[in-house]
Amino acid sequence: MSGWLAIVGLGPGAEAMVTPEVSTTLAEATDVVGYQPYVQRVAPRPGLVHHGSDNREELQRAQAALRLAAAGRRVAVVSSGDPGVFAMASAIFEAVEAGDPAWRSLDIRVLPGISAMLAASARVGAPLGHDFCCINLSDNLKPWPLIERRLRLAAEADFAMAFYNPRSRARPEGFARVLEVLREACGSQRLIVLARAVSTPQEAVHVTCLGEARPEMADMRTLVIVGSSRTRRIERDDATPLVYTPRSVPWSS
Amino acid sequence: MSGWLAIVGLGPGAEAMVTPEVSTTLAEATDVVGYQPYVQRVAPRPGLVHHGSDNREELQRAQAALRLAAAGRRVAVVSSGDPGVFAMASAIFEAVEAGDPAWRSLDIRVLPGISAMLAASARVGAPLGHDFCCINLSDNLKPWPLIERRLRLAAEADFAMAFYNPRSRARPEGFARVLEVLREACGSQRLIVLARAVSTPQEAVHVTCLGEARPEMADMRTLVIVGSSRTRRIERDDATPLVYTPRSVPWSS
Repeated sequence: MSGWLAIVGLGPGAEAMVTPEVSTTLAEATDVVGYQPYVQRVAPRPGLVHHGSDNREELQRAQAALRLAAAGRRVAVVSSGDPGVFAMASAIFEAVEAGDPAWRSLDIRVLPGISAMLAASARVGAPLGHDFCCINLSDNLKPWPLIERRLRLAAEADFAMAFYNPRSRARPEGFARVLEVLREACGSQRLIVLARAVSTPQEAVHVTCLGEARPEMADMRTLVIVGSSRTRRIERDDATPLVYTPRSVPWSS
Repeated sequence: MSGWLAIVGLGPGAEAMVTPEVSTTLAEATDVVGYQPYVQRVAPRPGLVHHGSDNREELQRAQAALRLAAAGRRVAVVSSGDPGVFAMASAIFEAVEAGDPAWRSLDIRVLPGISAMLAASARVGAPLGHDFCCINLSDNLKPWPLIERRLRLAAEADFAMAFYNPRSRARPEGFARVLEVLREACGSQRLIVLARAVSTPQEAVHVTCLGEARPEMADMRTLVIVGSSRTRRIERDDATPLVYTPRSVPWSS
């Protein structure tokens, strides 16, 4: 059997959200490659080699995975959530484009997963039920002014917004600035959802408004959703409020 | 056992992309409710009642599902893809907010699915690997000028864009206008992916540029992705080109 490379999404955490095609592929792999905590989600078995690496080493990891597949191994590159959203798929294709031309002939597949934004949205209702955007708040790989520019344009377009990587130890001040920009552009009453580690034992979901949101409500495992001007909150007795964005926008608006 | 309502995503089409939690829930349901073609994806079995209805009847369908759950039935409301993205979840919560206050106490869960945009993105590479937006191009429920406004702002923000419902028999001219607006805002060389019925036997994926794209390349089963200015195409011998958006934006841009 010749080698292949599958870039697979493990979903947000729960086994019950891993698709059968991903499970089957993991069962056929000889090598699993990725960020250490994600690689550890794949159970050890005879014949499977785990290659866990540190964060921020995506490009070297991608090259190593491509070399393994070119050597005939069956390689699963794992990401949390969906591999195409701020995850390993782009890193692999960057490596393919810049690397050995023979890598273009490899059998490379991307197998989608339940993304963090869809899992977070489902937990509170349907805040992404109308037009929305999705922004990575980390400025590791792009200039900070571009992030602020996109926030302002997204607010002007009245998109709901999903944010990845809101806050890390290396950038404690970034998310505070994001909240400031959004309060200015959307007002303090705008709904915000802070969904940490959805579907894992560490899950914690908060629904509040921009005026009440504090930077320390998010860390690197939090997915943040800010509603559009139309997003609504339904109160419930003894349960988290529901948050959803209606399907329609009136013609007068 | 008391009633519940689960709003579940069936994914883009292939059984192998239906999550285990959705399969388990469907196996426990007494009633499956939804648009007829999606309801038909759930195999008949003794004790399961199929309630298929026509398109554009989302709100009546939502109310019917809530009444069934309130009467003690175990109801699965099915959507293709993810139920929270231009699908049944928002319709259910609209019905909850406007309807019988007792509905707020029902056990209502949203179970995410592999969305059409993530499945389409995976098929060609990783075009949504950097910041992106997601817009429903149907003007059934919002004014057309708002769609054009969002397209222009999304182009200004340099988002990649995923489009749902590009074209239907009722609106044959809308997608032609979208292509015109985007050619003006992004130039004719900008990459576009037209992915029809991904993961089904009718799957057809085209990669081209805005200058070559024609309205008739899309129908109501097509998910359209337009790249950002940074999205790249990797040519391959004897295979569809790969399309991906790099993770980084240079500081000079």
